[in-house]
Amino acid sequence: MKIAIAQLNPTIGNISANARQILAAAEESAKLGARLLLTPELSLCGYPPRDLLLNPSFVQNMGEQLTELARKLPSQLAVLVGTVQTNSQAASRGEKPLFNSIALIDKGQIKQIFHKRLLPTYDVFDEDRYFQPGYESNYFTLDGIKIGVTICEDLWNDEKFWGKRTYQINPIEDLVKLDIDLVVNLSASPYTVNKHKLREEMLKSSAIRARIPIVYVNQVGGNDDLIFDGNSFSFNCNGQLMCRAKAYERDLVIIDYDEAKGDLLPGSIVNLPETEAEEIFLALVLGVKDYARKCGFTKVVLGLSGGIDSALVAAIASVAMGPENVLGVLMPSPYSSTHSITDAVALVDNLGINSEKLPIEGLMKVYDAALAPLFANTEFGVAEENIQSRIRGNLLMAIANKFGYLLLSTGNKSEMAVGYCTLYGDMNGGLAVIADVPKTRVYDLCNWLNRDREIIPFNIINKPPSAELKPDQKDRDSLPEYEILDDILERIICQHRSPAQIIASGHDRDTVNKVMKLVGRAEFKRRQAPPGIKITDRAFGTGWRMPIASRWLK
Amino acid sequence: MKIAIAQLNPTIGNISANARQILAAAEESAKLGARLLLTPELSLCGYPPRDLLLNPSFVQNMGEQLTELARKLPSQLAVLVGTVQTNSQAASRGEKPLFNSIALIDKGQIKQIFHKRLLPTYDVFDEDRYFQPGYESNYFTLDGIKIGVTICEDLWNDEKFWGKRTYQINPIEDLVKLDIDLVVNLSASPYTVNKHKLREEMLKSSAIRARIPIVYVNQVGGNDDLIFDGNSFSFNCNGQLMCRAKAYERDLVIIDYDEAKGDLLPGSIVNLPETEAEEIFLALVLGVKDYARKCGFTKVVLGLSGGIDSALVAAIASVAMGPENVLGVLMPSPYSSTHSITDAVALVDNLGINSEKLPIEGLMKVYDAALAPLFANTEFGVAEENIQSRIRGNLLMAIANKFGYLLLSTGNKSEMAVGYCTLYGDMNGGLAVIADVPKTRVYDLCNWLNRDREIIPFNIINKPPSAELKPDQKDRDSLPEYEILDDILERIICQHRSPAQIIASGHDRDTVNKVMKLVGRAEFKRRQAPPGIKITDRAFGTGWRMPIASRWLK
Repeated sequence: MKIAIAQLNPTIGNISANARQILAAAEESAKLGARLLLTPELSLCGYPPRDLLLNPSFVQNMGEQLTELARKLPSQLAVLVGTVQTNSQAASRGEKPLFNSIALIDKGQIKQIFHKRLLPTYDVFDEDRYFQPGYESNYFTLDGIKIGVTICEDLWNDEKFWGKRTYQINPIEDLVKLDIDLVVNLSASPYTVNKHKLREEMLKSSAIRARIPIVYVNQVGGNDDLIFDGNSFSFNCNGQLMCRAKAYERDLVIIDYDEAKGDLLPGSIVNLPETEAEEIFLALVLGVKDYARKCGFTKVVLGLSGGIDSALVAAIASVAMGPENVLGVLMPSPYSSTHSITDAVALVDNLGINSEKLPIEGLMKVYDAALAPLFANTEFGVAEENIQSRIRGNLLMAIANKFGYLLLSTGNKSEMAVGYCTLYGDMNGGLAVIADVPKTRVYDLCNWLNRDREIIPFNIINKPPSAELKPDQKDRDSLPEYEILDDILERIICQHRSPAQIIASGHDRDTVNKVMKLVGRAEFKRRQAPPGIKITDRAFGTGWRMPIASRWLK
Repeated sequence: MKIAIAQLNPTIGNISANARQILAAAEESAKLGARLLLTPELSLCGYPPRDLLLNPSFVQNMGEQLTELARKLPSQLAVLVGTVQTNSQAASRGEKPLFNSIALIDKGQIKQIFHKRLLPTYDVFDEDRYFQPGYESNYFTLDGIKIGVTICEDLWNDEKFWGKRTYQINPIEDLVKLDIDLVVNLSASPYTVNKHKLREEMLKSSAIRARIPIVYVNQVGGNDDLIFDGNSFSFNCNGQLMCRAKAYERDLVIIDYDEAKGDLLPGSIVNLPETEAEEIFLALVLGVKDYARKCGFTKVVLGLSGGIDSALVAAIASVAMGPENVLGVLMPSPYSSTHSITDAVALVDNLGINSEKLPIEGLMKVYDAALAPLFANTEFGVAEENIQSRIRGNLLMAIANKFGYLLLSTGNKSEMAVGYCTLYGDMNGGLAVIADVPKTRVYDLCNWLNRDREIIPFNIINKPPSAELKPDQKDRDSLPEYEILDDILERIICQHRSPAQIIASGHDRDTVNKVMKLVGRAEFKRRQAPPGIKITDRAFGTGWRMPIASRWLK
């Protein structure tokens, strides 16, 4: 039996367009001789739909579109479609109102509905907010083959693999008892660095232990802060990789299940990106491309300071949008060094993007004059530094508003962590492209970009980082060196370590305490930041929920 | 037995200070002859601690402080303290790592630990993210009295009262079976309009049905977007109100349980605010006061446009902070009407706050000049309107940064809903004071303020609303009249109605569709808004989780 894996890129909430995508994939699959088509979790509405699920008309519309889709699908093909189902007994049983479900459509009809059993409610996931877990094992029989259905998290509770349980039940154990021939997993699993390897290791281990082949289909595409990387795959019952779909792209892959052998046959295997840098870069490219497309933008604008962060974002944008659709704006002040202009110009030339130059000295003077009655006899300080950043932010937003461009903000994760950024200034933008990329990784990505030829001008990489908001300012005047800072931040943010533990790991006490305070105090800035593309297990954004008016470690 | 209700105002995460508050309340209660002291849910860390709970050292510190507190508490007093407990069997059972608990401390020792059974996971609540529900009924016996312990949501599943179940179990039904003498409910229940009445009706109904007296203690204070209104109370087993604590203030109330009668005796009853307007105004005052205090600000600044929104926020701020700690900044442009200055000046005089005047015409001209090379041959439009708003936002932030003031933003809920506000402009601020107050309610609040004498100048109330960003601009040129807009918005935002349903209720089709689109398209602005004080069941903010790059009803 030929099984088609449709690695789709839905737009959240655009149910009719998503249904058309499923239909197109079904028609293509039918032509290729498939009997069964797999689509990702919630393929009809896109994942994550979030609070759109609170609208009854949204759920109702999904049901209508599912019925209509069922009528249109090729009759020789059975299709698994991700959808939401109303829990009719919610009010009487005291349950949540919806299920996160998969509909089995065959011969024009919805034959069966399967409910997700394990509902992730951590990090960016809020599934307990909307969904009731399914209580039964999910499977169906197609042409004599007994196929177990799992939805994303359902396969993420392998106690042997993780060394602990995360949920009380383990759906694959239940399926094994039912003598299943094949397990499919329909997912929308967001990208983080190396996560595709983790998924493959985990399901390889499950396939071997259960001695059941597993076909895994993942959503692809960027949805606000989340990138879905695709990388769908399958393992045979010996844990051998039988196929792998593309990363970061829509794909349709056919895999063969041999009824006689009771196992999958080898299919095509796409290679993974070679380095973490390549993998991250391509994820960020997809993030920009899809955010722009799904919001209706064709062109982007960003400020070019001559520094490494904006250089990297410009490089990402030029791949995502095409260099002709990227406008870099140079906004030198009297504190800008000569090289910040020449470096930015070299970058513009290397990338082939558009650029404009708007000096801000005149604006700085008029702000100073306007505020002089209030600021008389005060020292130049953070207020004045921020004014420069906010002038630039205003100019960029004026251009974005005037021409309908998407403004990309260019701050990195290290800055966002310690608040080394200006709210309503350089933080401005519709999307914060590298907000989850620590500064040390920004260097890695730029070095990778330069592996064959200079794309990021070498001087941008080699000079000491500076905000250039006052004469001779350098980042290292107010922050630890980035190697140290990023290591401390990783321990605070991702590993939830205490100051005592971080000091015990060899870091300087005063530095640790200072960084801890900075992180706590910058919460009000992060709360107002644009969505940032998530690439780590712990990003600022929808999965980071911190109080502001609080006192822990400030 | 005398029972003390400590309506406390903790600062999130400031565990040692919160412990001192509990200790002070205990010493006071002991002096008043109490045998038992009740404190709110999570009184040791404050509610909601959010992702601070992900730090093991935070949880550990809470345990240490609890032990230390137990040693210090007066020995004649039993105390219920809200704390977090580690779930030692989480990894083996596949459960969440923590419990939301209450510790019973008596005679220097932690005698019993009770776990919350119903975990709210909707709106602003994320308890499933952190906590495992407790599976057992919670009670203890003190001096022969059998006391049932419930934590906040535990009493919010009364099927008879609500006409439906929200959770499978109902803790009070379980307690009734155990022959409990008295039920206590330790809460952190956020304010929304009229919610205190709902709580009283609900627990009155529970007391009557169960024929058990109920003592309810609520947290008080503002924590970011959430206001906890206090209003603790008790009902006897006939459903008669036996006591009510203050609204919006720390309070300590003693209530007597008569062992012979098996019921509560009458205590003191504080009156509720007389009108919804008063209730909301006082809630917003507490929100500003506590956000400022808990973030370490003593002074606030805001822009005064001469319009009704900034007038209301100035009035709230002057009560919250004292008029001498409020700076209103007038920033007229060439499009400002004469009355916008005179009205703002009259407001400043009425409130007795400080003011400054910073005209922005010079800055507008220099921005125009700076952008002229790019904007040549384009029409004056939204870009230019936004520049004015952003100039004002920059000036206000410069003042805030220079002098360490908290900037208050002044946009109302109607504007936030339809995006009639400028990101990085008038949306700037650390706290959005009336972001959950629809425009029509803004008028109600101002009229209430003026009930005895003119505080908000009458001309501010009577003139047609205008953003004054271009000549003769009026809100009604681009938006429906606010009575119509607010009714449509209520149906979209709070009632989750579809366009068809709203049109069927009598609204104009084009207007409904336009408003629907505006609400969808403004999501990117709301994502970057400051925390706004929640007063309705459905506020933008932590409980509003919408995708941006999506297509539902745009």
